Amino acid sequence: MLNAKKDIMNITTIIGLLAAFGTTVSFLPQAVKTIQTKNTSGISLAMYGLFTTGTLLWLIYGLMSGSLPVTIANAITFIFASIILIYKMIYK
Amino acid sequence: MLNAKKDIMNITTIIGLLAAFGTTVSFLPQAVKTIQTKNTSGISLAMYGLFTTGTLLWLIYGLMSGSLPVTIANAITFIFASIILIYKMIYK
Repeated sequence: MLNAKKDIMNITTIIGLLAAFGTTVSFLPQAVKTIQTKNTSGISLAMYGLFTTGTLLWLIYGLMSGSLPVTIANAITFIFASIILIYKMIYK
Repeated sequence: MLNAKKDIMNITTIIGLLAAFGTTVSFLPQAVKTIQTKNTSGISLAMYGLFTTGTLLWLIYGLMSGSLPVTIANAITFIFASIILIYKMIYK
C-alpha cells in the first residue's frame, strides 16, 4: 500500500517534470533572443510585470507546497523573466 | 495544531491562486489578439506545440497532485493555447 502510493507520487512527479520541461524549454529561445538583442519593443510593461510577479508567486507556492516541478520550472522562468523586465524598464 | 496546518494550507493555496491569476491574465491579451487576428506568423510551430503539450501535462499534474491553482491556471491556458496551435496549423 505504501509502495503503491509512492509509485503514484513518482508518476505524478515525472508528469510534472515533463510539464516543467515543456513550458520552460518553449519559453527560453524567445527569452534568450530578447536578452541578446535587448529589443523589448513588442512587450507590454504592465503585462510582463504581471507575468514576472506571477512566476515569483508560483516559485513561492512551489516551495510552500513542496512541489519540485513547480519550484524548478518557476525558478528558471523567474530568472529570465526578471532580466527581460529590467531590460524593458531600462531600454523603454 | 490541525487548525494551524489548515491555515498554512490556505495561505499556500491563496499564493498559488494569485500566481495563477498573474501568469494566466498576462497570457490572455496576446492570446485573444492572436485568435482574433488569426495572425500566427510570429509563432514557432515547434515551440508552441511544446508549450501546449506542457500546459496539458501541467493540467494532468495539477489534477493528480490535487493542486487547485495548477489545475485552474493550466485548464484556461491549455484551451487558449490549443486554439492558437490549431490556427497556426491551418493558417501557416
